[in-house]
Amino acid sequence: MTQLPTEFDRIARHFRPLAGPGALGLLDDAAVFMPPAGRDMVIAADAMVAGVHFLPDDPPDLVARKLLRTNLSDLAAMGATPLGYLTTISLPRDVADGWFAAFAAGLGVDQAEFGLSLLGGDCTSTAGPVSLSLTILGHVAPGKAVRRAGAQAGDEIWVSGTIGDGALGLLAAQGLLADADGTLADRYRLPRPRLGLARHDLVRACLDVSDGLVQDCGHLCRAGGVAARIEAAAVPLSPAARRAGMIERCLTGGDDYELLMAVAPQHAAALRTHAETLGIAISRIGSFAQGDAQVMVLDSTGAPMTLSRGGWSHF
Amino acid sequence: MTQLPTEFDRIARHFRPLAGPGALGLLDDAAVFMPPAGRDMVIAADAMVAGVHFLPDDPPDLVARKLLRTNLSDLAAMGATPLGYLTTISLPRDVADGWFAAFAAGLGVDQAEFGLSLLGGDCTSTAGPVSLSLTILGHVAPGKAVRRAGAQAGDEIWVSGTIGDGALGLLAAQGLLADADGTLADRYRLPRPRLGLARHDLVRACLDVSDGLVQDCGHLCRAGGVAARIEAAAVPLSPAARRAGMIERCLTGGDDYELLMAVAPQHAAALRTHAETLGIAISRIGSFAQGDAQVMVLDSTGAPMTLSRGGWSHF
Repeated sequence: MTQLPTEFDRIARHFRPLAGPGALGLLDDAAVFMPPAGRDMVIAADAMVAGVHFLPDDPPDLVARKLLRTNLSDLAAMGATPLGYLTTISLPRDVADGWFAAFAAGLGVDQAEFGLSLLGGDCTSTAGPVSLSLTILGHVAPGKAVRRAGAQAGDEIWVSGTIGDGALGLLAAQGLLADADGTLADRYRLPRPRLGLARHDLVRACLDVSDGLVQDCGHLCRAGGVAARIEAAAVPLSPAARRAGMIERCLTGGDDYELLMAVAPQHAAALRTHAETLGIAISRIGSFAQGDAQVMVLDSTGAPMTLSRGGWSHF
Repeated sequence: MTQLPTEFDRIARHFRPLAGPGALGLLDDAAVFMPPAGRDMVIAADAMVAGVHFLPDDPPDLVARKLLRTNLSDLAAMGATPLGYLTTISLPRDVADGWFAAFAAGLGVDQAEFGLSLLGGDCTSTAGPVSLSLTILGHVAPGKAVRRAGAQAGDEIWVSGTIGDGALGLLAAQGLLADADGTLADRYRLPRPRLGLARHDLVRACLDVSDGLVQDCGHLCRAGGVAARIEAAAVPLSPAARRAGMIERCLTGGDDYELLMAVAPQHAAALRTHAETLGIAISRIGSFAQGDAQVMVLDSTGAPMTLSRGGWSHF
């Protein structure tokens, strides 16, 4: 009984160094923390499965960082500040110790970059693919969370970064698309959560684009009871995406983790200035209008494009 | 774009009815809630995988309830009060709609029984076995969480309910052990979280027994810097477990989700009275002593038993 079983030994060696205040050294049945005074708590959870959200041979450190960053992107969409996270990890029984070491190292890099720490989690075996979940905790001034609802007719549609790199990066990582400098695959493996961008006083509604720009814009439409018109030529594409020339896949492919924002025209200039101070490029891609909660994408002639699908659905 | 993809339609039909205050109708990127004033937050996460934590053909409503209850058991161990939960669900793409309906129905039954509500989560596909995670949130008076550390030499070791039914229930559910009235399989499939039992003023240290009584008692020993002596004959067994006569498996098998508590002798009577008011049986099974952080199990003659293992490790 003096020797710890492998499971607990691995948690102690690889994950305890990531544990922050409240985690109780990962030694208890739960974490305990005093919430920041006078703040609302923000909480979200995402799952990632090998072969679905990442490639089975992706480096474990990058898998960990993608897992953390996709959740940070949810906090970013709400205008929240990161606080901590819990993660559950289901792995084949014969996984090497090095997998844990690399996975934890990836978490360590990003929790330092984004200012949060590990609160707890669970580590189990599975006979199937690596299955991960992460629950992220953040906080926001009371009543100041940015919601999906709120877009109004006349609001401009703005998006951060570039769209489509994630979807094309998956093709590149699978060897199905040329990606000489690896920028597309990198964008698939390592999302950039746009923390701090969605300021409550500048952004009326927001979400992070994870399942495809067009489909996710539909969520803003339904929540706000407005129609959306997107100009395809205005959607920001990276040089690599532009070279690939697969515009429909860029618009509907998912894995972008960029923020899609409804912005009142009188706030657009201030939002652009705010984005510049953060070093985040933002682009106006269209506008909301009265009408059915539908997304219309217009080509460079102003004619509606016909898309075979709006975005990703797991089922 | 007016028709919701199947994934979102399922979330709306099956899970939105479970959403509580703060969940924002499961329509946003995260939940937002004001933490209970003047309380510490308690948070834990567990994963469950088909073929590891439950049988692939277990009814989805019972799988959901086990998932929620194992996490509630972690809150119980800390002396915390449930508040809400998030769950991530990874399922084969061809899973029937009825699976979601039954799973959500199970969550509904237990969130009503235990007084908490759904805050959020994620639903994805997998090429492997059903993989689930649940993060549970609770709260406790500041500084009053019951910890694993705290056991002192001279403290009594108390345990709730009966030990071994979960491990034997797995054998029964697999058809490897007779279980005429199904009580053992029921105990495997449906843990009883002992909420309210571990009162801070009566219990010095506590955890929930999930990986085997002996191994988990070792955690209390290490955290408290004490040795433990357990009298095998005092470990409470159900009539079915007594009939099965597999004492070593009962002591080390796991899946009990009973509370193991270090109790100062002067508090034992009050704890027993408190447990009676909750309708929970508790039993004294041994005591802590000075010495190396080891667990010794004594047979009915007082001789140390040799156990082939202490408990469950995933790796």
